Amino acid sequence: MVVRGAPAIAIAAALSLAVEVFNFHGFDGSASDAVAFLENKLDYLVSSRPTAVNLADAALKLKHVIAKALATATEAKSIFKAYIEASEDMLEDDVVSNKAIGNFGLSLLRQQAKNPDKLSVLTHCNTGSLATAGYGTALGVIRALHTQGILERAYCTETRPFNQGSRLTAFELVHEKIPATLIADSAAAALMKDGRVDGVIVGADRVASNGDTANKIGTYSLALCAKHHGIPFYVAAPLTSVDLSLSSGKEIVIEERSPKELMHTHGGLGERIAAPGISVWNPAFDMTPAELIAGIITEKGVITKNGNDTFDISSFAKKITGNSSR
Amino acid sequence: MVVRGAPAIAIAAALSLAVEVFNFHGFDGSASDAVAFLENKLDYLVSSRPTAVNLADAALKLKHVIAKALATATEAKSIFKAYIEASEDMLEDDVVSNKAIGNFGLSLLRQQAKNPDKLSVLTHCNTGSLATAGYGTALGVIRALHTQGILERAYCTETRPFNQGSRLTAFELVHEKIPATLIADSAAAALMKDGRVDGVIVGADRVASNGDTANKIGTYSLALCAKHHGIPFYVAAPLTSVDLSLSSGKEIVIEERSPKELMHTHGGLGERIAAPGISVWNPAFDMTPAELIAGIITEKGVITKNGNDTFDISSFAKKITGNSSR
Repeated sequence: MVVRGAPAIAIAAALSLAVEVFNFHGFDGSASDAVAFLENKLDYLVSSRPTAVNLADAALKLKHVIAKALATATEAKSIFKAYIEASEDMLEDDVVSNKAIGNFGLSLLRQQAKNPDKLSVLTHCNTGSLATAGYGTALGVIRALHTQGILERAYCTETRPFNQGSRLTAFELVHEKIPATLIADSAAAALMKDGRVDGVIVGADRVASNGDTANKIGTYSLALCAKHHGIPFYVAAPLTSVDLSLSSGKEIVIEERSPKELMHTHGGLGERIAAPGISVWNPAFDMTPAELIAGIITEKGVITKNGNDTFDISSFAKKITGNSSR
Repeated sequence: MVVRGAPAIAIAAALSLAVEVFNFHGFDGSASDAVAFLENKLDYLVSSRPTAVNLADAALKLKHVIAKALATATEAKSIFKAYIEASEDMLEDDVVSNKAIGNFGLSLLRQQAKNPDKLSVLTHCNTGSLATAGYGTALGVIRALHTQGILERAYCTETRPFNQGSRLTAFELVHEKIPATLIADSAAAALMKDGRVDGVIVGADRVASNGDTANKIGTYSLALCAKHHGIPFYVAAPLTSVDLSLSSGKEIVIEERSPKELMHTHGGLGERIAAPGISVWNPAFDMTPAELIAGIITEKGVITKNGNDTFDISSFAKKITGNSSR
């Protein structure tokens, strides 16, 4: 959890391995040995964070790059060079992708808002510069709304138990001088009832092909409250967060984290707050069913629902692959 | 917030004044002066916590007692004695009342549960020995279920930002050896979706005559999530928490509390956790509309809904007053 946010995890992992091989002067194997070495390291990185699909996706792309390089490479050095370049491209692509998400989100929210010239948005967890390579996904949309002068206020939740909202999102919002208010996670429903939220926008750790979305614990609760108050609920995520091999969210494994995060302050590292001896259930994520989601904002456009109120992400992805060089 | 929990606030306030007058040897006024002195003190106590109706109710009862005592009293001492006895009776009555709530709640939950011999209950905030004179309201019902051997598990929320759940409720549950699990407030929806909750039971700071209930922030969110999952949501509160002068919850003033509770650990007294400079919205309570409440469990029985899906608490209260010496 030192590096967090699904897109950032993928890029940090890819780049950390790039740094390792950049300084790797003692490698005396062949080009094939270099490929095997990198593949092995990538597999290990993927196994470290099972919920974050972006990492698996990044590893797969990097494996393709090095396999392709092997066709012409005569020494290990060329393989490492190809790997380093590909991981650096990934960093640049992520910022470009986030900005596209921001702009698509901006249009969608304006289009669906009662007053398209002044709107307030609630977000959860951290999906900004501190979770991605730069601009942010859900927070990228908030950034875009602010830049265009149509953001009235951003509300961010504390995001218990690890406080990503109060520590990271609040920090980014203050830093960017975006008008923003922090609330307890449990105050979101009262805020919505007061009519102070025009839309809820969150990121995603993994999206199944039907649109079911795994995201930070508490996302599902926000989606239920938004539905009750007739407030649109959006997911903002790069297409790398979509796992088309999963037919629904039921197939996504939810990590459980240490009871210490609830027992102590500072994510388990600080003083004890909870009564000693109590059992704790601390799921890292929950699943928001597609039925509660009004739209999935990607870097290639917004995925909206079909006539039968379902998402068809496969067709969207196919259309993208057909139309572009992604 | 040193003394908290609406019923405990009333009793602690009444008793603190009793201690004051018990040690009050230097009072040289008449019996009427003593009445005026006590009335003045009671008014001051009521103004200190506007949301807690129990305190206003207790003050009114105590005023009646001293007014009655004045008819026969010849000196200030007799007034003080009458006041002290009445506030002591209040303490005993509260425990008796809580036990009645526990038993009525037990019957209701068994009656409405799929499996009446084994059920799990979610609660919010603290409504136990540490919030009442002894047994507890919502926690009294959990205590009764446990004593009868039909409680599978009690779940308690952290109850941000003041952590009454993780500090106080968890403490009581561990102390009583009740099987119990602590969750983040925002994990409640995921817990419900997993089918692990048979009923939600909370206390009340104030109940309007239509059943709308003001209670700790986050209660409304739990009620919405419970509704979505078809889980009954109950309020357990003594009749003193009902304010028949309020036609609906819209008339209840919600206190806002210090931003420090979200900015720092330990309710504002500990280290800073949130990013400096962020605005905070920190309502102490929220309003759960009667439509989301399956029943209000009082010490005189359960108030259920009429044919037209509304509560008629006035009629219930009238029936009680007619039938008993309350």
